[in-house]
Amino acid sequence: MITSTQNPRIKHLLLLEQKSAQRRKDGLFVVEGRREVEHCLEAGYTLRTVFVCEELCRESLPPHGNVWNGAEVVPVSPNVYERIAYRGGTEGIVAVVEERRLTLQDLRLSASPLIVVLESVEKPGNLGAVLRSADAAGADAVIVCDPLTDLYNPNLIRSAIGAVFTVPCVACSTHECIEFFKHEGISILTAQLQDSLLYYDTPMTGPTAIVMGTEATGLTEPWRQAADAHIRIPMLGRLDSLNVSVSAAILLFEAVRQRQKQSGEK
Amino acid sequence: MITSTQNPRIKHLLLLEQKSAQRRKDGLFVVEGRREVEHCLEAGYTLRTVFVCEELCRESLPPHGNVWNGAEVVPVSPNVYERIAYRGGTEGIVAVVEERRLTLQDLRLSASPLIVVLESVEKPGNLGAVLRSADAAGADAVIVCDPLTDLYNPNLIRSAIGAVFTVPCVACSTHECIEFFKHEGISILTAQLQDSLLYYDTPMTGPTAIVMGTEATGLTEPWRQAADAHIRIPMLGRLDSLNVSVSAAILLFEAVRQRQKQSGEK
Repeated sequence: MITSTQNPRIKHLLLLEQKSAQRRKDGLFVVEGRREVEHCLEAGYTLRTVFVCEELCRESLPPHGNVWNGAEVVPVSPNVYERIAYRGGTEGIVAVVEERRLTLQDLRLSASPLIVVLESVEKPGNLGAVLRSADAAGADAVIVCDPLTDLYNPNLIRSAIGAVFTVPCVACSTHECIEFFKHEGISILTAQLQDSLLYYDTPMTGPTAIVMGTEATGLTEPWRQAADAHIRIPMLGRLDSLNVSVSAAILLFEAVRQRQKQSGEK
Repeated sequence: MITSTQNPRIKHLLLLEQKSAQRRKDGLFVVEGRREVEHCLEAGYTLRTVFVCEELCRESLPPHGNVWNGAEVVPVSPNVYERIAYRGGTEGIVAVVEERRLTLQDLRLSASPLIVVLESVEKPGNLGAVLRSADAAGADAVIVCDPLTDLYNPNLIRSAIGAVFTVPCVACSTHECIEFFKHEGISILTAQLQDSLLYYDTPMTGPTAIVMGTEATGLTEPWRQAADAHIRIPMLGRLDSLNVSVSAAILLFEAVRQRQKQSGEK
């Protein structure tokens, strides 16, 4: 059992939690909590190491000896666990996992895909919240148009509450993404205020990508020009702004509504 | 000009920022940022004191001498300002404002009101996010069914980005709230999974209150029994959960959609 926070493996784990450069260098990231680790396994990720604090595990671990799903299980003492856990209400499990970078070509899309595109990510927590809404709406994928986006930031994983493993997420360039949509026959709906239709007057039953700019600067020109339709959420209050994950959820669930109405009518 | 963070007025300001007991005792709270202070004034709040760091004000202040809208203007040095500002990207203005506790009877409702009710607030930031969505949807009010809710928590004010001043917010008991809705003829739609209709199959064009439980425990029995309809958002993914502010936004904007469709058909 590891009982010292100065242990080299613990120091390495902390680096993986804190430094995106370390994550990129090692191709590893950190997942905390039993449920998240299970989602991660279901999604086909490979665990490298599982640090377990048996005093804090609410349920007993699966029978493992010192191996769980091929990963080495390393017991740690409560003081070490407290240092490595990055959130409260913890469940005594922190895993080091091999990252897996999906490309657009890896996506397995449904017959009428529903996709959310973020031009860039201002806060990792926002991307996590978008993934959570995308999971609920049964979306096929979330795409971030910045190839350098760190999809394994701990704040992202935490705010996604597992959705980082249940919704395929790809980071690529704007150019690649637009080409992909054109090639696949996916309609591009850009969320913007200018020259736009109300979102609920816009059909979303066919293959649809909903593209959102940043809260600060809105959408860039390549997206505005590639758009099949510009859509807006009416702003009926005095502040003229919605959180990006809230906007994404409103638009995604309008697609859900339209699709369920259509299939109900058939 | 105040140049010491040990100045008694600065110490008192910090107590107001950090302690809800101090806010309640003094009936005062703290607002930061020029735009937020302006929303606060428009909403009819009374400023007590405005701390200003002229070096950081992006725009010049209105002509004031040492009084602004009846409030005393107190210049502070940049080091003091840095201590009292509770968020980044600040604009050199922090105001101490007199709180105003609205009751249900203070609400001025529209002909067909749209109201969000939260049974309780797990995180102040969530209430702020609900207020922001309520502003965008043009909702009449947000009601929190816990009379002890601190509506002036700094995290709430920050996450609401001004909506705490543009949307009337009342804290009261569940019993008072249900009585009020029955008396005013406002339909109670409770968000719950059991025995529920899909939200978009439920009419929301009449006077409507959307009632949400906590993410952890859901709705309490008095609300389930008082409900005119139980509604649910379909969960099409694998995680079975949405953030409360996201759920509120989806339901509010369905009401917006139905109302605009109806007025378009007239």
